[in-house]
Amino acid sequence: MAPAEVMTFDTELSQCIEDCLACQRVCLETLTYCLGKGGRHAEAKHLRLLMDCAEICQTSANFMLRGSELHSRTCFACSEVCGRCAESCARLGEDRLLKACADMCARCSESCWRMGGGVMPQTPNPEAAQRAANLPA
Amino acid sequence: MAPAEVMTFDTELSQCIEDCLACQRVCLETLTYCLGKGGRHAEAKHLRLLMDCAEICQTSANFMLRGSELHSRTCFACSEVCGRCAESCARLGEDRLLKACADMCARCSESCWRMGGGVMPQTPNPEAAQRAANLPA
Amino acid sequence: MAPAEVMTFDTELSQCIEDCLACQRVCLETLTYCLGKGGRHAEAKHLRLLMDCAEICQTSANFMLRGSELHSRTCFACSEVCGRCAESCARLGEDRLLKACADMCARCSESCWRMGGGVMPQTPNPEAAQRAANLPA
Amino acid sequence: MAPAEVMTFDTELSQCIEDCLACQRVCLETLTYCLGKGGRHAEAKHLRLLMDCAEICQTSANFMLRGSELHSRTCFACSEVCGRCAESCARLGEDRLLKACADMCARCSESCWRMGGGVMPQTPNPEAAQRAANLPA
Repeated sequence: MAPAEVMTFDTELSQCIEDCLACQRVCLETLTYCLGKGGRHAEAKHLRLLMDCAEICQTSANFMLRGSELHSRTCFACSEVCGRCAESCARLGEDRLLKACADMCARCSESCWRMGGGVMPQTPNPEAAQRAANLPA
Repeated sequence: MAPAEVMTFDTELSQCIEDCLACQRVCLETLTYCLGKGGRHAEAKHLRLLMDCAEICQTSANFMLRGSELHSRTCFACSEVCGRCAESCARLGEDRLLKACADMCARCSESCWRMGGGVMPQTPNPEAAQRAANLPA
Repeated sequence: MAPAEVMTFDTELSQCIEDCLACQRVCLETLTYCLGKGGRHAEAKHLRLLMDCAEICQTSANFMLRGSELHSRTCFACSEVCGRCAESCARLGEDRLLKACADMCARCSESCWRMGGGVMPQTPNPEAAQRAANLPA
Repeated sequence: MAPAEVMTFDTELSQCIEDCLACQRVCLETLTYCLGKGGRHAEAKHLRLLMDCAEICQTSANFMLRGSELHSRTCFACSEVCGRCAESCARLGEDRLLKACADMCARCSESCWRMGGGVMPQTPNPEAAQRAANLPA
């Protein structure tokens, strides 16, 4: 038994917890890396997304670890933030660390999307509705 | 100028930040109180909701304070968690502290709902869709 | 009664909670401001201190709000981080926001120092004491 | 490469990060378990320690992941909280989950203690030194 796994969750939930924890970690590591590198890597929007992603991943993992019945809500928010963070990292190109972060964010986004029940935002606001319609199923 | 207010946000955003921070705080205070009181106050489900609510309020406030463009997502999750926590506190009756917590959670839920754009969950899963349909507008 | 104050703490503890919460907030607001401003304001070391300070203030406030008997430990760590963050903000000069952040950090540092008991953890473990003695002043 | 490890830290730091993350996780899992079990497992003091431990482990890991030069302070606080949490879990006896949590907390406490340098913060400020000297051992 790995030291950090004392409980048994169902497989999908368990995978989502792993993904959120791994994503939180890689986002903070990438933040440290980008701060040190400066330039395009340290643009406000990118750094903010890394902070956002690390924080919602942590919150989302904590909801699942606490066995909260409301974890689908935090997972859904997490899915969207991870998706944006993945794009932001991917745009920075071929850098090995950024690529690892983009991959992990994309994986976590997918994992949280399933856990969030594929909840899809709908709103009387037609612009937002359009954006939602354009989201992958 | 209050020491903690160095930036100017628009009124509604600013109010939502205040509400999240106040709600986070009252939930932790109520958690402490309920832990000490035991019995119905310390039932697992209620304590978990207080922890959930404190954490998502913190995350939601932090997204807004960082100026994140994704704050509507965390606000939306926060709105739902606050709503549930308000109910859980209200069910515990006439206790002054619980009542203050229920009121603050309800206020924060409303505030976050507006900030989240009144996003309403929709899903191909009919059970979840039904639950969503039963939510107040 | 302010909505977020449902419990009565002793005056000094209560003030320390206020200071930590206000400091957490101003640090995140200043982080947002500095990210937007760029240049010296967005140097890695400064941004990292703002993130560190916001996080330990939050943790420290949460320990006190939970009534944890170990809050002196988190307050002590908080005191040092706030002190460094105050210096970092003060070095950036006459900017109104940075100055407000420096002031709040200095106040919180002092408040946490008192709450941490001016802790000088002592240990019967001679090995650890030796390691400590070998640290740079 | 594991998905969450994009940076290279020195061995001891890296191990401490792993231990904090694993300890944060096991504390939340144990909290969930204890909430469900009730009775002695759900006593206020024990639940609070699990919450304290999870939170300071998270903060401590985040400081290290951000490359903060102040991580020795959060590690030192973490070491003490983990030590207390280990005792609290161990007292609950032979339960497999509690035992795993106690072991992880003890390991993390030791790891953070080394990382905190067995810190004995010293200050040139004679007033603070005096206050410290007056503290109970």
